[in-house]
Amino acid sequence: MIGVEGKPYPLTELVSRFGGRAVGDAVIAQVATLENAGEGDIVFLGSAKYQAQLAATRASAVIVGESDADITTLPRIICNNPYLYFARVSALLNPPPQFEPGIHASAVIGAGAVIDPGAHIGPNVVIGAGAVIGARCVLMAGCNIGGNVTLGEDGCLYPHVVVYHDCVLGRRLTVHSGVVIGADGFGNAPEADGSWLKIPQLGRVVIGDDVEIGANTTIDRGALGDTVIEDGVKLDNLIQVAHNVRIGAHTAIAGCTGIAGSAVIGKYCRIGGAAMIHGHLEIADRVNVSGGTMISRSMPKSGNYTGWVPAQEHADWLKNFSRLRHLDALADKVRALEKKLAEWEKKT
Amino acid sequence: MIGVEGKPYPLTELVSRFGGRAVGDAVIAQVATLENAGEGDIVFLGSAKYQAQLAATRASAVIVGESDADITTLPRIICNNPYLYFARVSALLNPPPQFEPGIHASAVIGAGAVIDPGAHIGPNVVIGAGAVIGARCVLMAGCNIGGNVTLGEDGCLYPHVVVYHDCVLGRRLTVHSGVVIGADGFGNAPEADGSWLKIPQLGRVVIGDDVEIGANTTIDRGALGDTVIEDGVKLDNLIQVAHNVRIGAHTAIAGCTGIAGSAVIGKYCRIGGAAMIHGHLEIADRVNVSGGTMISRSMPKSGNYTGWVPAQEHADWLKNFSRLRHLDALADKVRALEKKLAEWEKKT
Amino acid sequence: MIGVEGKPYPLTELVSRFGGRAVGDAVIAQVATLENAGEGDIVFLGSAKYQAQLAATRASAVIVGESDADITTLPRIICNNPYLYFARVSALLNPPPQFEPGIHASAVIGAGAVIDPGAHIGPNVVIGAGAVIGARCVLMAGCNIGGNVTLGEDGCLYPHVVVYHDCVLGRRLTVHSGVVIGADGFGNAPEADGSWLKIPQLGRVVIGDDVEIGANTTIDRGALGDTVIEDGVKLDNLIQVAHNVRIGAHTAIAGCTGIAGSAVIGKYCRIGGAAMIHGHLEIADRVNVSGGTMISRSMPKSGNYTGWVPAQEHADWLKNFSRLRHLDALADKVRALEKKLAEWEKKT
Repeated sequence: MIGVEGKPYPLTELVSRFGGRAVGDAVIAQVATLENAGEGDIVFLGSAKYQAQLAATRASAVIVGESDADITTLPRIICNNPYLYFARVSALLNPPPQFEPGIHASAVIGAGAVIDPGAHIGPNVVIGAGAVIGARCVLMAGCNIGGNVTLGEDGCLYPHVVVYHDCVLGRRLTVHSGVVIGADGFGNAPEADGSWLKIPQLGRVVIGDDVEIGANTTIDRGALGDTVIEDGVKLDNLIQVAHNVRIGAHTAIAGCTGIAGSAVIGKYCRIGGAAMIHGHLEIADRVNVSGGTMISRSMPKSGNYTGWVPAQEHADWLKNFSRLRHLDALADKVRALEKKLAEWEKKT
Repeated sequence: MIGVEGKPYPLTELVSRFGGRAVGDAVIAQVATLENAGEGDIVFLGSAKYQAQLAATRASAVIVGESDADITTLPRIICNNPYLYFARVSALLNPPPQFEPGIHASAVIGAGAVIDPGAHIGPNVVIGAGAVIGARCVLMAGCNIGGNVTLGEDGCLYPHVVVYHDCVLGRRLTVHSGVVIGADGFGNAPEADGSWLKIPQLGRVVIGDDVEIGANTTIDRGALGDTVIEDGVKLDNLIQVAHNVRIGAHTAIAGCTGIAGSAVIGKYCRIGGAAMIHGHLEIADRVNVSGGTMISRSMPKSGNYTGWVPAQEHADWLKNFSRLRHLDALADKVRALEKKLAEWEKKT
Repeated sequence: MIGVEGKPYPLTELVSRFGGRAVGDAVIAQVATLENAGEGDIVFLGSAKYQAQLAATRASAVIVGESDADITTLPRIICNNPYLYFARVSALLNPPPQFEPGIHASAVIGAGAVIDPGAHIGPNVVIGAGAVIGARCVLMAGCNIGGNVTLGEDGCLYPHVVVYHDCVLGRRLTVHSGVVIGADGFGNAPEADGSWLKIPQLGRVVIGDDVEIGANTTIDRGALGDTVIEDGVKLDNLIQVAHNVRIGAHTAIAGCTGIAGSAVIGKYCRIGGAAMIHGHLEIADRVNVSGGTMISRSMPKSGNYTGWVPAQEHADWLKNFSRLRHLDALADKVRALEKKLAEWEKKT
């Protein structure tokens, strides 16, 4: 790894790159939180409710929204979306580390694999026959790329990523350690005696551009067709994506979510952590699913969907949930009461 | 890897291998879906409701059930269970890849380990002292086999499988990447001051024949006795199997499920994804558990068990679940109303 | 690995080490369960309800509580906390395996890394530039330690642990296979067009002393500040710890739990398996959360919190949960009935 430090930037240069307008000036070397900032740091104000912390901050400058333009006398950048602006500044100040091109002596490269000379292939990497590794890709130690895999340019695979044979991975892909792409889907046909016959998993995983995949997430190959992750999808850690799932462009899914086979998820969706998506259903674009929610039916229209149990003190929960087991009977009782009263009303 | 292509088969040869009867003939090279099939492909009709897709398919032949024997004029195989038949044909046409016997130069083999000369030991594999690797086993790159592990014949371990010391693994085992077998169970005794004292985990993991384990699943070793996975069990990805669990033969468990310590699960069970099984309970044979369902008590009889919250539009959920927190009080109100009306009925 | 066998101990020596009092004598070589014990084994009686198994045991001795001092005629140790005592005896009889100091020839060590000569660095381990590995640490095969990581003395990392750059790990740390420490947190800012801009994750993971982390668990680095795991925390398998989480000292968390970003969990908490903790909330010390429970709000006081759906037979669940979707309406009906009856009462 070659260290690459972002150089400090005056507010004026930030504004000339990213827009907004500067009031006052300061030279910015790093981003920080309101609480932890010091000399040379820039912070952002997400909401006027953090005004007290803003008053106490030791930051050299702050990024604020138009409505908060005069909330501070600190040097500042005024813009439409302080959080997004902050993200741009942080990306500028913290460029990804650069890796020396070349193939480590311990790497094992299969016959006919084509590795761009600008790619970095780390120690103990194994690349299968016929694989193609694009320009400027970084494959850190212990990555294992199956035969005939294609990896687009500017990919970054952290240590110990496994990609099974024939998968097709797009450009600017980031994959964190422990991810497994292209393992067999869970397909078994029951025999007459109740044992299982494995169904060969013949599809691939096809991943678009600008996708990021969190640590220890698993994405299974398709059974017959492919499992597809479209452009710009962001997956957190420990997510299970089953065979033949399709995840639409720019959808973001938080950790511990499980997606069953052949589910089709739309574009621009936001799925909370530990959600569960049944198989063979379709979710429209721009659907938001709360964490811990089970989606068991297709969701044909955009919206916010939720289904989980709020935690209570254990004793209260026990009482309420013993009732829940008899909710149908309770509803019947209420209907009987309504009927009886209606009859009485008629009589009197 | 040595490529092994299944050769094409005429319908007549399929029927002579697998039974059923052929109407018409075709030469079959691959399986496909109704939608994607082309020349040389065989498809199956799972249900007459797919008749429209069947009419449009470009497949060369189709596998149908007895009741659909005349649903098409395409060359076809008529049988009792089209899906199972299709699985058999697919397995015939798509034999697993073959690997050259031998030990890669980078592998590290412990003292006294016995590796069958027909086994394939890939790059960077580490095998501990005293381990025994059976005939025709394939250990792909980076697998790590602990001391004194026994792996039966025809095992296939994808890259980066870790098996801790002393575990006993059966024949025809398939383990996908990132699986960890035999890590310590979660056993700690509370000290008087609230800190934890680790309890040594002295048992093993013992796995039967014909088991398949999905990517990144974890199976902990027993605390005193063993964790046992019986013959024919199929585990999907990202499943947690805690210490001293026993999973009965031919049970299938979908992804993201967690099974707590000392749970005993019967044979031929089907556990849906993201289910949760408490510890120290017993589940009978042939129990089906829906995905996302918590099993907190023993299930002494076969059946279908479910417990999860259906997703609603967020606003509806909020209203309903604020009531759920007071369900016990609501039930009390209904009882009070019933009592009052009963008293009035007596009076009038 | 050098085998280290615990030698047999007479009851008197156990008592002189760990307290309690011995009645009778026996020479103890191993711990066991009541059912499986044999000659030379010691067992413990957790509760008088296991008296039948105790009567049948073939153990050479038993550890009992004060109230069960006379429950058996077997040689025995009488003490306050039989389970904890048993754990101490087991730890004595089953010391961890010892590993030869030294660096395997296949390991790749970065510039300026400082590795204590007493540490064991296994095959294919990769250690980044500037990392510091403490005395008597064991890094088993394939571990990957990022640049500038610090690992305190007596750490034990099982095969295939990945630690990203700059993380700080305390003393007597045990990490099981497949764990990923320090991967990027899930931080993305939405662009105007709905795509995502990655927010650089600049913090670290900081782990205290005496922590144990189960297989395939993931702990993300902080976005700006650090993710912090305090002393004595015990994490089971397949847990997701998001960026900027803090877990208080001696808290134990069971498998498959997900903790969202910036959650602060107190000391001495016990979190059940498959629990879900929302982000940006605070949980007090000594909070117990049941397995499968979602914590969506801060929990400012100690207690036991629960929220999950008990499983029922599928048909019963269907009936009850169709009602649950209309619980708010049902509660309104009950209120209407109450009102109507109250009016009648006034009239009559």
